[in-house]
Amino acid sequence: MTAPLLSPSRRVRRTPFSAGVEAQGVKAYTVYNRMLLPTVFESVQADYHHLKKHVQVWDVSCERQVELRGPDAARLMQMLTPRDLRGMTVGQCCYVPIVDETGGMLNDPVAVKLAEDRWWISIADSDLLLWVKGIASGYRLDVLVVEPDVSPLGVQGPKADELMARVFGDGVRNIRFFRYGIFSFEGRDMVVARSGYSKQGGFEIYVEGGDIGMPLWNALFEAGRDLEVRAGCPNLIERIESGLLSYGNDMTADNTPHECGLGRFCNTNTAIGCIGRDALLRVAKEGPVQQIRALDIAGDAVPGCDRPWPLYAGEAQVGQITSAAWSPDFGTNVAIGMVRMTHWDAGTVLRADVLGEERVVTVRPGFWA
Amino acid sequence: MTAPLLSPSRRVRRTPFSAGVEAQGVKAYTVYNRMLLPTVFESVQADYHHLKKHVQVWDVSCERQVELRGPDAARLMQMLTPRDLRGMTVGQCCYVPIVDETGGMLNDPVAVKLAEDRWWISIADSDLLLWVKGIASGYRLDVLVVEPDVSPLGVQGPKADELMARVFGDGVRNIRFFRYGIFSFEGRDMVVARSGYSKQGGFEIYVEGGDIGMPLWNALFEAGRDLEVRAGCPNLIERIESGLLSYGNDMTADNTPHECGLGRFCNTNTAIGCIGRDALLRVAKEGPVQQIRALDIAGDAVPGCDRPWPLYAGEAQVGQITSAAWSPDFGTNVAIGMVRMTHWDAGTVLRADVLGEERVVTVRPGFWA
Repeated sequence: MTAPLLSPSRRVRRTPFSAGVEAQGVKAYTVYNRMLLPTVFESVQADYHHLKKHVQVWDVSCERQVELRGPDAARLMQMLTPRDLRGMTVGQCCYVPIVDETGGMLNDPVAVKLAEDRWWISIADSDLLLWVKGIASGYRLDVLVVEPDVSPLGVQGPKADELMARVFGDGVRNIRFFRYGIFSFEGRDMVVARSGYSKQGGFEIYVEGGDIGMPLWNALFEAGRDLEVRAGCPNLIERIESGLLSYGNDMTADNTPHECGLGRFCNTNTAIGCIGRDALLRVAKEGPVQQIRALDIAGDAVPGCDRPWPLYAGEAQVGQITSAAWSPDFGTNVAIGMVRMTHWDAGTVLRADVLGEERVVTVRPGFWA
Repeated sequence: MTAPLLSPSRRVRRTPFSAGVEAQGVKAYTVYNRMLLPTVFESVQADYHHLKKHVQVWDVSCERQVELRGPDAARLMQMLTPRDLRGMTVGQCCYVPIVDETGGMLNDPVAVKLAEDRWWISIADSDLLLWVKGIASGYRLDVLVVEPDVSPLGVQGPKADELMARVFGDGVRNIRFFRYGIFSFEGRDMVVARSGYSKQGGFEIYVEGGDIGMPLWNALFEAGRDLEVRAGCPNLIERIESGLLSYGNDMTADNTPHECGLGRFCNTNTAIGCIGRDALLRVAKEGPVQQIRALDIAGDAVPGCDRPWPLYAGEAQVGQITSAAWSPDFGTNVAIGMVRMTHWDAGTVLRADVLGEERVVTVRPGFWA
């Protein structure tokens, strides 16, 4: 099965960094929030080894921002999520499950509190803007909801601190995990957060204004030459090893946060105002009947997981696999799936139907990294 | 510039017809509503000639449905659009611009009235479901809003009537334009509408239940062998010639329906309840300051339009081109763009910057077909 081509159109939006991404020889993309997201530069495996050893610059512009601004911004933010945000301070980022009135996940973004009355929601792959605008309109809230011209640029890998310090100054080294600071580049202030979609450490720069995108991109590559900096992207293997879920792959609006193993980000009792609170109170108390698990798939490298692979115990389907890849470092196929509670204990052995081929699958006690 | 590859993932959803599409040798896709939409089979030009002469079966599952069901369904439907829907009857389909509270276009779908209290909205490329759910929740409407398991299959081209009659019976010949009937296939009722994203004539079958997808696909190919039926897809050249706009390409939430030349679908005075009505009343009266135009681009075949190409008169930017392709039948580059009123009269000559190359552009009196 060879990958098909992606046809060009304005609808699949380019980013402020697309010229840089192309110059670095991007080989494949996915489409994420109707925008180009690179998936492969040298190869998924070569990119993976490099990410764990050096530093990469990632065009993650597709993490679009939903900006809430106005007197009701904080109230609206709390309406969206079962995570209690009362203790959140300016300067903090929070991973927030977003749920509808039934408790179904609509997105799993990072909320950035810029001021009491100004927030960014850095979204996963769904038009959360439309939900938030609809809620704001329907509840007649006094708040502006827009997609600003802000494109995140990731700097990920063990040498990320060194590279960032060379461009933004040593102050970036002091940013704590899921905190941000304001740093200047060519006279422009930027939100720089210690966050990112890998577990190799690093930052996300919220680049405001597309015009400054390529100057920053070029400055990072210039400064990082001896660090072996390369263009990279969220890496399928590394993100599965690290247990970083992907909205649309590992969970959809059919799932509650508790099914996704995100119960620790839900304070359903105290998140007063959350639209999905009533629906989630019961599941928070009783627990879900199925949940995300790390899974080991025996045998050779599996193909790309472009559809759910059903999981069986005997004749009964007890779950499905939604992300999978061969891990060179762990010498196995690492995978993420949803498994029913009757079969979710670590060590349980199941069978997967991988495009007609039967594979032995073992439920793991946790993710790999 | 060669097209890059599209990486597989569950997030970019397959359709009930994907196996058939692959068997017919699909060469390229785009991603539309987070779902695979084929763009090329033999070649864009070969597909174009075939579409105008024979009949094609199109996997347009990505036209997902937003289903409204319940006592407030009709009220909610009218809240979404400035088109007055009071005269719409069961059995009718209507092209309805959907606008937000500022009059900005959120989608340009076809609404299908199944019953007074049950509607499908067959959407273009944005998560309209989230907007509609947000509005329903915020206004506390008594209505269910869901994405049902319904995947449209297009049958397009001059021989479409003949092919459809062989599979569904001669009754389909009597379906009028933008009307539908209920027809049976293997004991399953299906909504069959005379509609589609080409001007070559044809139908859209709203296939309810993914399991019946491939049996229907196969029956159409079996019945159409001597009609030279092929797998096809919305064709870039044909849709530009025909003036069929593409949401995300030719218009976005920045544009009002009037800018998109869709004023004839707006009854802003009488569409009482429409959320964007206040904002649109003024533009409906005064008219827009820029509007969609058919444009002729001189010279050789242009490259794929993957970003807006600015249009100039002298030093001033007066518009942009958002869709373009070489038309074999008209021997020119056909294009769609947005042009300011000072320069939108037919015959006006402008300059386009096509990736650094200057091209002469002429505003046309209308589309080609």
